Amino acid sequence: MKKMPKALLFDVFGTVVDWRGSITREAQALLAPQGHALDWDAFARDWRSRYQPAMERIRSGARGFVRLDVLHRENLVETLEAFGVTGLAETEIDHLNRAWHRLDPWPDAPSGLARLKRGAIIATLSNGNIALMVNMARHGDLPWDAILGAEVARAYKPQPEAYLRSCEALALAPGETMMVAAHNSDLVAAAATGMRTAFVLRPEEYGDPQHEDAQARGRYDIIADDFHDLAEKLGIAAN
Amino acid sequence: MKKMPKALLFDVFGTVVDWRGSITREAQALLAPQGHALDWDAFARDWRSRYQPAMERIRSGARGFVRLDVLHRENLVETLEAFGVTGLAETEIDHLNRAWHRLDPWPDAPSGLARLKRGAIIATLSNGNIALMVNMARHGDLPWDAILGAEVARAYKPQPEAYLRSCEALALAPGETMMVAAHNSDLVAAAATGMRTAFVLRPEEYGDPQHEDAQARGRYDIIADDFHDLAEKLGIAAN
Repeated sequence: MKKMPKALLFDVFGTVVDWRGSITREAQALLAPQGHALDWDAFARDWRSRYQPAMERIRSGARGFVRLDVLHRENLVETLEAFGVTGLAETEIDHLNRAWHRLDPWPDAPSGLARLKRGAIIATLSNGNIALMVNMARHGDLPWDAILGAEVARAYKPQPEAYLRSCEALALAPGETMMVAAHNSDLVAAAATGMRTAFVLRPEEYGDPQHEDAQARGRYDIIADDFHDLAEKLGIAAN
Repeated sequence: MKKMPKALLFDVFGTVVDWRGSITREAQALLAPQGHALDWDAFARDWRSRYQPAMERIRSGARGFVRLDVLHRENLVETLEAFGVTGLAETEIDHLNRAWHRLDPWPDAPSGLARLKRGAIIATLSNGNIALMVNMARHGDLPWDAILGAEVARAYKPQPEAYLRSCEALALAPGETMMVAAHNSDLVAAAATGMRTAFVLRPEEYGDPQHEDAQARGRYDIIADDFHDLAEKLGIAAN
């Protein structure tokens, strides 16, 4: 193992928190009592599937930067329509949209992050906006040193500016930092900016062993089973 | 007491940490062994006195936005010159400049912030840059939910944008937040944007009972003796 990175920068949706399980539960909790009988897991996946295309309009310059909360809400309206859900109050749509602020962490994440924090700065490098990340951290006991990423950088991953400006905010060179993600495309883009990389396996993100992110497909500095395994491989003791 | 603010936004230098005592100690620790016999407290005050004029050039538009670390270093070179200190290595100047990343908290700050955090989001709204705030928080065990302020807002207090963009990053209206500071001018500017205000007495910041910030000079929502007293007045229990 080379020298300890000075900062570990984390992808969040899927890497730190279980968006699929949490959104499935929140959608069912709101809509089932109103008589809707949907495939809740499909509902969650549909909503999530509109995420990359919505950001792509911003990455391409077709639209100016707006926060992820705004994109999530526009996408939710489309998903509700696709599933034939009508008649929700605006406040109910807002409440469901804020389910992204209440995503549950993977079981190892709170204690694993606390452990990793003893060895390096830990910060978010997510496409989620600051308010979303702050509320999620308070909900899930995620002890971030800083909330960085898209809103601070005014650029969405995988644009290089999203990574470079997050490192710069910490006054660190990319090579002094490590990107931690459960997604190959994120790590490939981070590595291209000079960041070191750690792939964390999250097989339950999609629950599909055929999914492209079910295994590491690039050459990464570390491949880990969870955050405690990552700490182990970085040489950060459990206590 | 009105409803609990959703977020408490903190001035940091002087309000959370003791810059004068810390800078005095760091300057002496570096320079005394090299044979310098200065008035260390005067050295710290001189360096700090160059802070507002340096930011003013940016606030006025005479200079584009640069981080406080950059201004601190330029100011340090001037202070060293004013005190006749020559011959320091660039790495020594860098080390002393980073003393701002290692400022010690007032004794009540770590436990007081942990208590306040149970009732509201706590975030920095300082003119200090992100790296400085992150390193200081790790040094002093300051459990911020988020690092906001000048670098995120790209504006220095007391410009209204510094306050407004920090509230906006939390997706909160100014009236849902409270500015916490030991400085009258900061609170007056925050109140003008619609933020609520809490004045915290820090008589040792300057150690001068005649200093303009030795007492509250405006009408604030709360005046507190320290962060535990602030928590008490907000109704946040000690445990």
